[in-house]
Amino acid sequence: MIRSYLYHPSGALECDVPVGQFREALSNPGALLWVDIEDPEDLDVECLLEVFELHPLTVEDCIMPNLRPKIEDFERYLFVVLQGLRRNEKGRLVPLELDLCVGSNFLITVRSEPIRVLDEERIRVEKKSPIIKRGADFLFYSLADSIIDSYFPILDEVEARVDELETRLLADSTQATLQELFGVYNELMILRRTLAPHREVLSRLNRGDIPFIKPANAIYFRDIYDHLLRMSDLVDSCREVTTMALEAYATIVSNRLNEIMKTLTAIATLALPLIVVTGIYGMNFSEHTFLLRFQWAFHLLSAALVLSLPVMFYCFRKYRWL
Amino acid sequence: MIRSYLYHPSGALECDVPVGQFREALSNPGALLWVDIEDPEDLDVECLLEVFELHPLTVEDCIMPNLRPKIEDFERYLFVVLQGLRRNEKGRLVPLELDLCVGSNFLITVRSEPIRVLDEERIRVEKKSPIIKRGADFLFYSLADSIIDSYFPILDEVEARVDELETRLLADSTQATLQELFGVYNELMILRRTLAPHREVLSRLNRGDIPFIKPANAIYFRDIYDHLLRMSDLVDSCREVTTMALEAYATIVSNRLNEIMKTLTAIATLALPLIVVTGIYGMNFSEHTFLLRFQWAFHLLSAALVLSLPVMFYCFRKYRWL
Amino acid sequence: MIRSYLYHPSGALECDVPVGQFREALSNPGALLWVDIEDPEDLDVECLLEVFELHPLTVEDCIMPNLRPKIEDFERYLFVVLQGLRRNEKGRLVPLELDLCVGSNFLITVRSEPIRVLDEERIRVEKKSPIIKRGADFLFYSLADSIIDSYFPILDEVEARVDELETRLLADSTQATLQELFGVYNELMILRRTLAPHREVLSRLNRGDIPFIKPANAIYFRDIYDHLLRMSDLVDSCREVTTMALEAYATIVSNRLNEIMKTLTAIATLALPLIVVTGIYGMNFSEHTFLLRFQWAFHLLSAALVLSLPVMFYCFRKYRWL
Amino acid sequence: MIRSYLYHPSGALECDVPVGQFREALSNPGALLWVDIEDPEDLDVECLLEVFELHPLTVEDCIMPNLRPKIEDFERYLFVVLQGLRRNEKGRLVPLELDLCVGSNFLITVRSEPIRVLDEERIRVEKKSPIIKRGADFLFYSLADSIIDSYFPILDEVEARVDELETRLLADSTQATLQELFGVYNELMILRRTLAPHREVLSRLNRGDIPFIKPANAIYFRDIYDHLLRMSDLVDSCREVTTMALEAYATIVSNRLNEIMKTLTAIATLALPLIVVTGIYGMNFSEHTFLLRFQWAFHLLSAALVLSLPVMFYCFRKYRWL
Amino acid sequence: MIRSYLYHPSGALECDVPVGQFREALSNPGALLWVDIEDPEDLDVECLLEVFELHPLTVEDCIMPNLRPKIEDFERYLFVVLQGLRRNEKGRLVPLELDLCVGSNFLITVRSEPIRVLDEERIRVEKKSPIIKRGADFLFYSLADSIIDSYFPILDEVEARVDELETRLLADSTQATLQELFGVYNELMILRRTLAPHREVLSRLNRGDIPFIKPANAIYFRDIYDHLLRMSDLVDSCREVTTMALEAYATIVSNRLNEIMKTLTAIATLALPLIVVTGIYGMNFSEHTFLLRFQWAFHLLSAALVLSLPVMFYCFRKYRWL
Repeated sequence: MIRSYLYHPSGALECDVPVGQFREALSNPGALLWVDIEDPEDLDVECLLEVFELHPLTVEDCIMPNLRPKIEDFERYLFVVLQGLRRNEKGRLVPLELDLCVGSNFLITVRSEPIRVLDEERIRVEKKSPIIKRGADFLFYSLADSIIDSYFPILDEVEARVDELETRLLADSTQATLQELFGVYNELMILRRTLAPHREVLSRLNRGDIPFIKPANAIYFRDIYDHLLRMSDLVDSCREVTTMALEAYATIVSNRLNEIMKTLTAIATLALPLIVVTGIYGMNFSEHTFLLRFQWAFHLLSAALVLSLPVMFYCFRKYRWL
Repeated sequence: MIRSYLYHPSGALECDVPVGQFREALSNPGALLWVDIEDPEDLDVECLLEVFELHPLTVEDCIMPNLRPKIEDFERYLFVVLQGLRRNEKGRLVPLELDLCVGSNFLITVRSEPIRVLDEERIRVEKKSPIIKRGADFLFYSLADSIIDSYFPILDEVEARVDELETRLLADSTQATLQELFGVYNELMILRRTLAPHREVLSRLNRGDIPFIKPANAIYFRDIYDHLLRMSDLVDSCREVTTMALEAYATIVSNRLNEIMKTLTAIATLALPLIVVTGIYGMNFSEHTFLLRFQWAFHLLSAALVLSLPVMFYCFRKYRWL
Repeated sequence: MIRSYLYHPSGALECDVPVGQFREALSNPGALLWVDIEDPEDLDVECLLEVFELHPLTVEDCIMPNLRPKIEDFERYLFVVLQGLRRNEKGRLVPLELDLCVGSNFLITVRSEPIRVLDEERIRVEKKSPIIKRGADFLFYSLADSIIDSYFPILDEVEARVDELETRLLADSTQATLQELFGVYNELMILRRTLAPHREVLSRLNRGDIPFIKPANAIYFRDIYDHLLRMSDLVDSCREVTTMALEAYATIVSNRLNEIMKTLTAIATLALPLIVVTGIYGMNFSEHTFLLRFQWAFHLLSAALVLSLPVMFYCFRKYRWL
Repeated sequence: MIRSYLYHPSGALECDVPVGQFREALSNPGALLWVDIEDPEDLDVECLLEVFELHPLTVEDCIMPNLRPKIEDFERYLFVVLQGLRRNEKGRLVPLELDLCVGSNFLITVRSEPIRVLDEERIRVEKKSPIIKRGADFLFYSLADSIIDSYFPILDEVEARVDELETRLLADSTQATLQELFGVYNELMILRRTLAPHREVLSRLNRGDIPFIKPANAIYFRDIYDHLLRMSDLVDSCREVTTMALEAYATIVSNRLNEIMKTLTAIATLALPLIVVTGIYGMNFSEHTFLLRFQWAFHLLSAALVLSLPVMFYCFRKYRWL
Repeated sequence: MIRSYLYHPSGALECDVPVGQFREALSNPGALLWVDIEDPEDLDVECLLEVFELHPLTVEDCIMPNLRPKIEDFERYLFVVLQGLRRNEKGRLVPLELDLCVGSNFLITVRSEPIRVLDEERIRVEKKSPIIKRGADFLFYSLADSIIDSYFPILDEVEARVDELETRLLADSTQATLQELFGVYNELMILRRTLAPHREVLSRLNRGDIPFIKPANAIYFRDIYDHLLRMSDLVDSCREVTTMALEAYATIVSNRLNEIMKTLTAIATLALPLIVVTGIYGMNFSEHTFLLRFQWAFHLLSAALVLSLPVMFYCFRKYRWL
């Protein structure tokens, strides 16, 4: 599906310009033509190659999915790939690719599926928002800003889950918590992998030496870059908290095991001598064995058993076992 | 709330200059106007945009909270975001943002809540401290120095807690200590996350090529930068001690478990044969079984049991189990 | 085995040019001579040294195996070493080296064993594919692209195995899973070790300042470079998931051990007192001991034993042991 | 305490020059004045500010302790902070700060406590060592070299302890060894924290573009820099050995635990069936139960028990439990 | 011991030139004088200082052992320190230092002990190998190449041991394997510590801007540099495999412990109820207790005991304990 907006220097905005008039629109240096292609078809590709004279590699990048965010400057335009994120039906984070070609008086946006924040911008333009009046580079900034800012809700959600999991891990110890933590860790890595190349792209855009970006507008890309830095800081610190929580938790588990084993050992140590002695006196040599001939033997041994308990208990306390 | 100080080249200091006279003050290149805005209202924002002609992005950064420390140079002024730290009511460290615009003859400070060290500087100026006499850049240095030095007490406290926890962890093993260590670790990460971007800001300020900072004053920012390096060193080494303490502790716990298990095994090994043998002689086949017919059998087995104890004990010692 | 293709500026393609005519072909600046040597023999080496006047170090690199991917520019040609990967008969990943010399009007490819993707390109050229018409640098790009893209199936397979193993590790716990994970980890390291130097090579090739690469074609090498970046991202994140999975798994194992030990301790704690008491009453002092004289003693002790069970059970629940 | 040495171009050395004559000495470009201040008092500070015209920040750095090693070049002098290390009364490593101002014809050294290696150099100068003849920069090199080389004995001691601990850890397993290892780890971190900024300082000094250092003398600072690199290499590798030793040790401990638990389980597995069976035959249903009526039952069960032992033993061996 | 070779431009090679003729040889720009000093004595040192006019720091570096590989360019010569490795009598890897001074028409090699690969080169020169004909820089390359290539056998041996240990660790679990692994890890760190500074040295040598190295020969040093990169890659990946093997092994050990503990718990759980019940019936209250009055009680309890076994077994299977 192809949508187009032509902003005339006179201030008029024309929607859904026919493809046949693109060439004429491009010849007017004061106008701005925004072409938004969703799920490009063969006809759209032909238009990109012939009307806009895009490089074959650019067109290939626009059609093929799963690219890394990047920036490439060609003679006639600047090619930028950005990625948003959305949760798919399984709840996993998957990238939403947006390819942009920024020329002196045109902007092309290509994507294989609907991107909510982009459509909101599009509707704003249709409702005569002034963002299209300030040139192709400002319109590009506006779209890039929407894409990058769409990471904030995801990040906030992930951060909240990390906080909650951290508290839960130290308090109780079900395996479900661990699996959830592992899930969050995977999402943090997806976020980091997506944010890192964006940072490279924005870092180049805010340097002010990119053609098709007016130097006075570079400051706006610096603003997006600052947002990216904050996101990266947050992702990194979430990852470290996650790792540290796991380690601290492992130690707590070991610790608990120690306590349990101490108790078990103490009980065994207290009970086993008693069992042995009672076993000896339970043997059926009754009449013939000298030990059982003497009445006092029973009293002596009973006393010894009873006394052994406090003695052992004292020793355990001394060596901090109970 | 807006407060303003106008230092005349003649040496006179005028407090609470009305907003209407700002424009006149700015036209005097020898004067210095310090405007301090706490919790900016709509009127203050208008003043920033129209009187000081700040860039809309700067004003947005001043109003919105939670920014990362950063430095941006505009044509008419230098925009710097710094962050202090304070403990909130839950005892967690939260950032205290201070936004500064340094011009040739003005300094604007914007913050959303009171910052103690800044107010102290303000009162010092009111009491005719000479810091306002040396120009906008020196006043800026003076405020930045106060903000950065306000990290020292927090760092000292954290370092003392790390030292104390390290000793405690190796000495005893309650879960509370671990949770406390984890808390300290989180604070160390907040400190690192806050200090790292400050280092970038100060590193640029001391290079001596920033407009609105007189080259002769760059050395003062190098001084703040040195303080930041020392703080970063300290935070990093605290983090490593924390991590290492946790690991060493985990090993100590495992070690103790080993000792306990050895004892338990030794006790079981000593007791179980005795129990089995006494069990055999406790069976009620008395008259009919050949084993019990012979008196000497009891004496032989008793001797064997008694002898088995030192033999086992010797073996345990040999294999270092007891 | 030596194969050669001579593309005339007129558009004609001559296959299997005799070695004796190489010198003449090289003297024609508009022609393009591609010489593909598999498992070089002494005669081939002589040809490289004398006809193409390659540097002795280059020839040594072509003959000796196991080189690291690299790029070296000589006066008359550019020398590039690339590596594919294949599984040997034991299923281990081993490198497949391809050495390329790119001159102004010739391309030499040397390899010690057949490389499938290269042979496919060769057959495409024989079938008059246009890739040979665009000069030595484009032909070089075309071969390099085939080599690098041959990593994708291996990467996809490894990624799928990581995903599957991650799920399996957290679900069950056989040692086979761990050994398989370790095998995948080793393959990830081989991939990383092979991709990293390729990235250096391609990074230099896309800079546009390499002789024998036309600036207009540098964009194609940037495309390969992007593919490499994506692969590296993927390998790195697979490695982190692998490591984290192992750690999370270790914690789950500890956790399970805890549960088991708790149960064991609880059982022992419940049973041992019963055993001791029944042992005492099983002693053969029957007639002479005062304890057994009284009937009520049995009832009292039986009651005590029966009561001890719910009391202990309550305590275990309270301390979260059962 | 202030000590001063004035070297005249004529070759004469004057000790303890009065403060009043400093100004005159400084006016002689061929002379060299070395002022060594220990524990600076107010009068000394005044002299630094007024006679040598040091920057207020430099003087502040000289008086305040605990600075990080650093280098700052001012118009009239070069300011360098170096740190030695000494063991305090508790045996902990604490820094020994030395501040140096290197001018064209003067050298000022400031320290808050005695530094042994510096005093040795001082005494050597008093005994007419030639090091003062070669200018302020060579005297500075000579002092810096002494300070840095004073790390070698400490490093050698730490390295010997790491070696000894590594051997001990793997051989036995007392908690004291672990605590000692932890102590060594802390010292390694102090060493690293101190050496890292020194490396920055020396790296700048040997570049040859520092005023007040004659280019021909830069090679001497390169020599100190090489020493620092070797020290850093040593500290890093000691740290890694320490960490790895701890990990290997943890695995050995787990391994031992496994062996112990296997034995315990084997014993329990061998003993429990015997205990159960003997218990059954010890029940007091004698006359009434059918099982005990038959004499052969006892012989059968005894045989079964005796046979069960080698069968179990065989199974344990098969599954590698004993 | 001092050995010298003088190559005349005429092609003649003179061995063991007397020290007195060195000065004359140096005055001939077309000749090449190679002086090889083993275990330098006072006379040799004097010759280095006076005939070759080496810097005192260079001579100090030549005499003192244990230096880090490095490169320093002086006005009249290039000073390079390289290190080989040998196993000492204890089997530990120790460095073999070789110091080289490369001038325009001389090469000095100094070492404190025999270096096999160097002596082989020396003998080759004596047998009129052409390497001395191509100038001091090529002779230097030839020696450096021999030294660096002498790492390959050591690396191959270490890699083979890592491979073998990795397999063994996962298969069985003696403590000897762990100690051996730790030994290999130590050797890997020695290798890394030695290779890293060599890389810096060679990286500078192949840049082509070093005096005394002809630009055309820089390619040869690039060749050595490539070898170093491959070695570093190999060492790094061996280290990671070692670390990962240790971690995977630790998890396997934990896993086995779990299996053992499960079995132990299952046995105890099955046996303890039986023991308690048989104990109760073994008590000597025979005639007086109501429980033993009834014949059917014994049959009931026996049935309960026998039934409890399959029930428990079923439960264990259900919760995956057996």
